Amino acid sequence: MIIDCHGHYTTVPTAHTRWRADQLAALLAGAATPSYPDVSDDEIRTSVEENQLRLLRERGADLTLFSPRASAMAHHEGDLPANVAWARACNDLIARVVEMFPEHFAGGCQLPQTPGGRLDEAIAELRRCAGLGFVGLNLNPDPSGGHFTAPPLTDPYWFPLYEAMCELDMPAMVHVSASCNPAMHATGASYLAADTVVFMQLLQGNLFATFPELRLVIPHGGGAVPYHWGRYRGLADMLGKPSLDTHLMRNVFFDTCVYHQPGIDLLLSVIDHDNVLFGSEMVGAVRGIDPTTGHYFDDTLRYVDHYADVAGLTAAGREQLLSGNARRVYPRLDRILRDQGR
Amino acid sequence: MIIDCHGHYTTVPTAHTRWRADQLAALLAGAATPSYPDVSDDEIRTSVEENQLRLLRERGADLTLFSPRASAMAHHEGDLPANVAWARACNDLIARVVEMFPEHFAGGCQLPQTPGGRLDEAIAELRRCAGLGFVGLNLNPDPSGGHFTAPPLTDPYWFPLYEAMCELDMPAMVHVSASCNPAMHATGASYLAADTVVFMQLLQGNLFATFPELRLVIPHGGGAVPYHWGRYRGLADMLGKPSLDTHLMRNVFFDTCVYHQPGIDLLLSVIDHDNVLFGSEMVGAVRGIDPTTGHYFDDTLRYVDHYADVAGLTAAGREQLLSGNARRVYPRLDRILRDQGR
Repeated sequence: MIIDCHGHYTTVPTAHTRWRADQLAALLAGAATPSYPDVSDDEIRTSVEENQLRLLRERGADLTLFSPRASAMAHHEGDLPANVAWARACNDLIARVVEMFPEHFAGGCQLPQTPGGRLDEAIAELRRCAGLGFVGLNLNPDPSGGHFTAPPLTDPYWFPLYEAMCELDMPAMVHVSASCNPAMHATGASYLAADTVVFMQLLQGNLFATFPELRLVIPHGGGAVPYHWGRYRGLADMLGKPSLDTHLMRNVFFDTCVYHQPGIDLLLSVIDHDNVLFGSEMVGAVRGIDPTTGHYFDDTLRYVDHYADVAGLTAAGREQLLSGNARRVYPRLDRILRDQGR
Repeated sequence: MIIDCHGHYTTVPTAHTRWRADQLAALLAGAATPSYPDVSDDEIRTSVEENQLRLLRERGADLTLFSPRASAMAHHEGDLPANVAWARACNDLIARVVEMFPEHFAGGCQLPQTPGGRLDEAIAELRRCAGLGFVGLNLNPDPSGGHFTAPPLTDPYWFPLYEAMCELDMPAMVHVSASCNPAMHATGASYLAADTVVFMQLLQGNLFATFPELRLVIPHGGGAVPYHWGRYRGLADMLGKPSLDTHLMRNVFFDTCVYHQPGIDLLLSVIDHDNVLFGSEMVGAVRGIDPTTGHYFDDTLRYVDHYADVAGLTAAGREQLLSGNARRVYPRLDRILRDQGR
């Protein structure tokens, strides 16, 4: 079985996206929030069948852990009530996709965050989504949109959310959103910077002593971290921290959203396979075909398969990377799959 | 011959460091700036001989491109006059080291930058240092110290500096300083984030059409970039840019400050060898010994040598990585070496 731990609903019906623009415009103008539009089942079905589901089938994967479009979370826009309404609307769409295609999608939710704002509403939305059957969440470590003004993830500011995550047994993918910083492109800069910055925050702290059950997935192959694994091992040593395997790697996981063979080879040769979850970010940041291979850049299953062939991974070793780790890290997903007889 | 393109004077005599603290304290108190202390030749000689020069010899390298301690530039502290005085003091120390050990060190200068401040003084200090025999400079793309508030490096704000660099034929290492952002550790987060962010700024723009002679060295192995080379090739395609080899890689170079074998292997298997300069950042961010190898993490010559052995590089291929590229990218360094008969 093949589970893609990282997919966003980047192909939403336009009425949904337009509503967010109208909502923000109304907020700025001091006008009433427009009512949320009707989005038909057919529109949703088509938007998924022609895109994520088609590619999932073509590439041979079974299920995607599906969450709202990351760049559209835009926690730096809107106020808290607006972002609560936006998160609910986004998550409700995901719930409808999952209800339509329960064998192919499981839900990850967006939280209503704001820069410096309280997390009560985020926790309430997480609980609501848990009730809807979601299995994970996306946590934005930089709601400022590219200015990195939030406290580090080891700060007690985040602890109430972690308590809810542990209680609900839901891991977070640590994922930033769009950038409003002209110096920082979203998918080419802020995403990878945040992945790297967050890992160092965790290294400096001792968060998992307080929350031993907390699990965080750092996407995009862990940013710069596996490439600089020696640097991080050395920094842990200089800062008097335990070795990374006990200090962080019982609780931190990387996905395989790295879009060329040498990157995947490095990831899988450096990072323990217990800590790597198959993911593609499809349809996402990079949508073209690599002229050097003739295949989609984000068809990461090819890279993982090729690594597995060359490294001589056993069937069990492949299964661990492609679905076993996801089922272990996301226990609610595992329960859904077992209920489906998978 | 082996040239390390990336070394900082991290072991300066304490009187020098104390003076900066006193200078900043006086600035805050509205008091007169204390006079710069006497730093004897013996203190300088000892601080270098026992550290960088000792390690240079032990590891078998010949010359380091030596610049002031990057984390101490601290452009977010002080005002413009204070930072002018600090840059002059730091650069004068470098000049003294180079004068003492002309066969082992060449100078890279620190610029007096401030967040949002004009660049006239930076250009004046660059010209002064060119007159002192410096061969390159460190350009801080984030003088805010971890908040990334500066315009992207493709913004005309930077153009007068680029004009001076081209006129003087001096390349810049793009290197941030300390972080005053509690979410962003300097050497473990801000450094690698900046390297990555800057590459994407360059990818989005078309800077080298305006400055075809401008050369930028992105340190720390290019941040996350080589690991995510497929992502960047794909983003260039999505943004309608030319392929990276013509768009950026005539002007952008990465050093080898990546502290484990798999990272160096990836760098050298992905990036054209014309674009990689040997560097170690020694004595710098990571000072310990890797328990898995028994050698210093930052003894990057071992990794490059091992790659060269396995890949079967010719003597010319090794020379290119270990000194040829540095001599080509830093023409003033090449002239000094030729004058020395090297």
